[in-house]
Amino acid sequence: MDLYSGHINKLIDELSGLPGIGSKSAQRLAFHLINMPLDRVNRLVKTIVDARENVCYCKECFTLTDNEVCPVCADQKRDHSTIMVVENTRDLAAYEKTGRYDGVYHVLHGAISPMLGIGPGDIRLKELVTRLEHNVSEVIIATNSSLEGETTAMYISKLIKPTGIRVTRIASGVPVGGDLEYIDEITLLRALEGRTEM
Amino acid sequence: MDLYSGHINKLIDELSGLPGIGSKSAQRLAFHLINMPLDRVNRLVKTIVDARENVCYCKECFTLTDNEVCPVCADQKRDHSTIMVVENTRDLAAYEKTGRYDGVYHVLHGAISPMLGIGPGDIRLKELVTRLEHNVSEVIIATNSSLEGETTAMYISKLIKPTGIRVTRIASGVPVGGDLEYIDEITLLRALEGRTEM
Repeated sequence: MDLYSGHINKLIDELSGLPGIGSKSAQRLAFHLINMPLDRVNRLVKTIVDARENVCYCKECFTLTDNEVCPVCADQKRDHSTIMVVENTRDLAAYEKTGRYDGVYHVLHGAISPMLGIGPGDIRLKELVTRLEHNVSEVIIATNSSLEGETTAMYISKLIKPTGIRVTRIASGVPVGGDLEYIDEITLLRALEGRTEM
Repeated sequence: MDLYSGHINKLIDELSGLPGIGSKSAQRLAFHLINMPLDRVNRLVKTIVDARENVCYCKECFTLTDNEVCPVCADQKRDHSTIMVVENTRDLAAYEKTGRYDGVYHVLHGAISPMLGIGPGDIRLKELVTRLEHNVSEVIIATNSSLEGETTAMYISKLIKPTGIRVTRIASGVPVGGDLEYIDEITLLRALEGRTEM
């Protein structure tokens, strides 16, 4: 459509290509950007380019970081023999926010998905296996409890079991504060199976 | 929070400042941008800067455009004696999408809002009055049917009536409180057909 000027249409097209931004939000964002003071636009653009150019993978756990080694891996007070495996950096941040986990992480950057053609070779699994050679006592699998997350968890479990290292999976069940009547049956069954003594 | 690297935190902060982007979407967007191929990031950034630098106001109707005069105003086949007054360029685009309006527009860039301290002098009203000197037969007021839109419509009506030019208002087939840009084309056309004298 050439409802708008060429520059505006191009901007709307670019913005609609970003995740979670539909065509209406793209329009609204585009007009916001065009009306923003020039120095604010330049700051935004510089921040994007800086982040894209300077953020790299931690050489230990592969989370996204500004340094060669991320702050968690660089922290000698943390328990480096316990590795929590997560799908991405946001999941790592979610556990860090709890402030109660003192082990380290391993970020897969994805999950096995035969549907999407993502195999074990497409995520950071080889790197996890390499880390197991260095004094690891437990691997906690904290992939999502989606089909892909569960498949990945099963795969990792089978891969690590033969080494004798302890492999655990975070519990799935009713979320704290969750209302039972709005929770799906599979979750309810998982919660029942995973019940513990009181 | 310093859950993420400095660059990522800065990027999330910048993105959360944009309209319609909450902190979760900002996180998701930030990680998407960081993982995007460098040439795609550069293209996005260039598009933003180009749009910000090159888009200007049409000197006739004040819509946002790449040229001195927008394509609608430049089109001699359109009826330049009928002016539809809209609040912003997105509303203009909404009517253009119907493909059935062949007059021209006037973009106010806002609406009168005593609550927000926006008076008649803060929107492109003086420019509208100037245009009325050049052979105008009808002014169709298509401001939103919100409090601000209605206030603006009343104000414009009172302003123009003494000149003897026909002033109409699009019908309130548009739901009260609705924003023009989100309304379907049929409703927009109904509202146009049902316009009444003010």
